[in-house]
Amino acid sequence: MTSKNPTTVTAQPGTPFIDIVREFDAPTDAVRRAYLEVELVSQWLGPNGYEIEVGTWDARTGGSWQFTHRDPEGNAYGFRGVFHSITDDQIIQTFEFDGWSGHVSLESLVFEDLGGRTRLVNRSVYQTVEDRDGMVESGMEQGLSEGYERLDKLLAASDAADVKG
Amino acid sequence: MTSKNPTTVTAQPGTPFIDIVREFDAPTDAVRRAYLEVELVSQWLGPNGYEIEVGTWDARTGGSWQFTHRDPEGNAYGFRGVFHSITDDQIIQTFEFDGWSGHVSLESLVFEDLGGRTRLVNRSVYQTVEDRDGMVESGMEQGLSEGYERLDKLLAASDAADVKG
Repeated sequence: MTSKNPTTVTAQPGTPFIDIVREFDAPTDAVRRAYLEVELVSQWLGPNGYEIEVGTWDARTGGSWQFTHRDPEGNAYGFRGVFHSITDDQIIQTFEFDGWSGHVSLESLVFEDLGGRTRLVNRSVYQTVEDRDGMVESGMEQGLSEGYERLDKLLAASDAADVKG
Repeated sequence: MTSKNPTTVTAQPGTPFIDIVREFDAPTDAVRRAYLEVELVSQWLGPNGYEIEVGTWDARTGGSWQFTHRDPEGNAYGFRGVFHSITDDQIIQTFEFDGWSGHVSLESLVFEDLGGRTRLVNRSVYQTVEDRDGMVESGMEQGLSEGYERLDKLLAASDAADVKG
């Protein structure tokens, strides 16, 4: 069983930032891999009940990514961006939703080592405060929490597999 | 002779934005090409007296760019980023200075058609207000103005060449 790790989302009024902090009961290397390796990403990213179809996933500095989420009714939601840089403890990438074209954000993901556990510190910045407000109002938070809960399970299962192996 | 087109740089205190507005006495297509085609970019970008060495210039959605500026004393300043998207009237790209690694910005360049002339509207957003302040304090404004003046001349020369041709 994984412990309950709350997701903290902060969006200070009048700023273009969204700050997300989440801890995971797994080492930084395992969490980082779950963000970079497409076979892992496709197992946890997004709201419950959505299917993911990955078009492009070139997880290296200068690489691109693209995937489509499909909800249970079959509606499609496309997302794409580029990896500006990938280092040992940070990923910096751009993010754009096809249904809201031209509203691009820059996202930094830092994986802090808590000694066998990991704190993910995620800052997104938008090109305007209005864009940021639009993203917050889109209901992103539920999909985010559901994705992290599936990631908790994936990390726990990988850990169990490692112990068995 | 080109007319004097002032460069307006706005950096509201407490925000992570830098807004630059500049007009050019040339059509949008010519100005856009001067930002995208490496043979043109390398003729105007940067402060006076600097040499430019382009490492990578893949001006397409998902492409990367990298160049190094050398000042008259031979000091090298490297810059790199990725093109998130390139459309008919907008370029969205990331930007990072090697000497200030990890401080990445997202830049939008819009080319507004003024009927034979062009207004360039450039917004950069940084991941923190402190990063933005650091960039403003770096003395970026002089190099920017000098580059735009060389771009004025390049556009005037291209225009003259087109008329002769």
